[in-house]
Amino acid sequence: MNSIPVFPDTVKILCVGVGAVGGFYGARLAAAGAEVSVVCRSDHDTVKRQGIAIDSIDGDFHFTPHAVFGQVPKPVQPMDYILVGLKVLPEISVSDIIRPAVGPNTAIVLLQNGVEIEESVAKAFPKNEIISGLAFICVNRTAPGHIRHLCYGRLTLGLYPQGRSDKVDQLGRLFEKSRTPCHISENVVTDRWQKLVWNAPFNPISMLVGANTREILEVAETANLVEKVMEEVCRVAAAAGHPLPPGIVKKNLDDTYRMAPYLTSMLLDRQAGRPMEVEAILGNAVRAADRCGLQAPYMETLYGILKLVVGQSAPRETWERGVLTIQEGGG
Amino acid sequence: MNSIPVFPDTVKILCVGVGAVGGFYGARLAAAGAEVSVVCRSDHDTVKRQGIAIDSIDGDFHFTPHAVFGQVPKPVQPMDYILVGLKVLPEISVSDIIRPAVGPNTAIVLLQNGVEIEESVAKAFPKNEIISGLAFICVNRTAPGHIRHLCYGRLTLGLYPQGRSDKVDQLGRLFEKSRTPCHISENVVTDRWQKLVWNAPFNPISMLVGANTREILEVAETANLVEKVMEEVCRVAAAAGHPLPPGIVKKNLDDTYRMAPYLTSMLLDRQAGRPMEVEAILGNAVRAADRCGLQAPYMETLYGILKLVVGQSAPRETWERGVLTIQEGGG
Repeated sequence: MNSIPVFPDTVKILCVGVGAVGGFYGARLAAAGAEVSVVCRSDHDTVKRQGIAIDSIDGDFHFTPHAVFGQVPKPVQPMDYILVGLKVLPEISVSDIIRPAVGPNTAIVLLQNGVEIEESVAKAFPKNEIISGLAFICVNRTAPGHIRHLCYGRLTLGLYPQGRSDKVDQLGRLFEKSRTPCHISENVVTDRWQKLVWNAPFNPISMLVGANTREILEVAETANLVEKVMEEVCRVAAAAGHPLPPGIVKKNLDDTYRMAPYLTSMLLDRQAGRPMEVEAILGNAVRAADRCGLQAPYMETLYGILKLVVGQSAPRETWERGVLTIQEGGG
Repeated sequence: MNSIPVFPDTVKILCVGVGAVGGFYGARLAAAGAEVSVVCRSDHDTVKRQGIAIDSIDGDFHFTPHAVFGQVPKPVQPMDYILVGLKVLPEISVSDIIRPAVGPNTAIVLLQNGVEIEESVAKAFPKNEIISGLAFICVNRTAPGHIRHLCYGRLTLGLYPQGRSDKVDQLGRLFEKSRTPCHISENVVTDRWQKLVWNAPFNPISMLVGANTREILEVAETANLVEKVMEEVCRVAAAAGHPLPPGIVKKNLDDTYRMAPYLTSMLLDRQAGRPMEVEAILGNAVRAADRCGLQAPYMETLYGILKLVVGQSAPRETWERGVLTIQEGGG
């Protein structure tokens, strides 16, 4: 009698960038009852015709979007959430891309990699809630309209720059309803730095050498380097106002020693000729260190080499600088 | 009447490792009138049959060794010099290899890359003169018994650990006689550190990315990294007792900006599947820093990645650990 409906109206969500991560979590939200539309470029025709099939360790399922767009539309009805699954790349302006669909009450959910990725979007939409999200998942887009979910899947969500809100809680409940473990964090920026402890060493090293995590840890000097980079991330995070829990370096190392050999997303991106998230994973951290007056020589070295790799790569003909350019998010 | 013969007897030299560098300078010494024998493994039959042909920008010439050995012999007559042109690799013990030919008055000339490469040989032969040599040359072994000399060619020679000697002077005169500019240094260890200023950044970065010197300097973050590594080499050198001249970093950068795009020896080695001199160029410098209580994070990062590359390479079946194993020195 006094039960309050959790979803008084159908929640309206627009997924921008439906690569592996964006597509998977968009599909989960649809499964939870939300009205999920998608913007996709290269897979547009396939997804419009047949939706997205997800082969998942948690059980295969199918996602038929409410609507499929080739570029971000000005929606007839305002969106409750825009779920951004785009890669974080210098040539992509998330703000420019999503602007047509941002209404006064639209929360912008950045389901992306790296640190310090929120500020430009928050500045572009100062009156909108920015929800920062971290996906802990192994998921690949295997073909147009096909996603393969290999393992994990949990999310961390939090209001940016900190705290929580009804919209964050509502989104978290939607994810939980679709069997997606979702941790609501009141310090999501700290969580981003914490995730970087692992990403900052393993992504660049694995990509440069073509090695998996086990091979990296088997060489004493390389394992030592991994630890030094991790410690440096902790120093920069603390200087940036986000001290990480003590013992986190050891925990990351122990966990990686225990887990099966793993190929990082940066290595997979390079092997597939896709752009790599060098700025989100290293450039922003190096700049944060610089801003805080801190030396970050380990990351600076990795970053200096990675920028040369990016410069050496073939020009990305399919990437255009512009308002409505959509690139699908990576896994 | 009172003229003193510069070479009272024919100078006897054994070249161990007649790759590009060892073969070229051995040939020059023979051209100057020394009796030069060689030890070579893979090219043994060819060199025994037809000697070594050198196509040189200074004029082509031919080198017929006095004797050609498949392994280091116990010589009938004592050697005045053993010229070591072997690569500096952990699996190669120069001392073990040359021991049979080292007589009481034999000077051991290490014409090799890197820093801190002399000590083990000096300890193994405490009563022999160790002459440390640096070659500034572009030279390749193009086929068995064929060497191509592309540019430069000057040498720096010095008594290890410092000072000069009659034997150093005599060797320098022999080289000068064969039109090889030869600088006699009384602080050759300092000269090694000075050469490392260039080698420590450019060799690893070029090898990891497959880039030439120009490409490296065209990316701002990578050029910045090069400078940081160079400055770090200067700090380590100073801590190790070998302060380098002020302005040396700027000079190295300016010179590299001016010169034609250049592929480093480490990159060429990797492309050819040959072992790389990772320890001589980086490992020894990192250990020197550690010994001096200094942080060397830039080199430590490069070293940590390079050790993984070395670990990933195919096992070197042609490389045997053992006393008499000979591997030809690289260019």
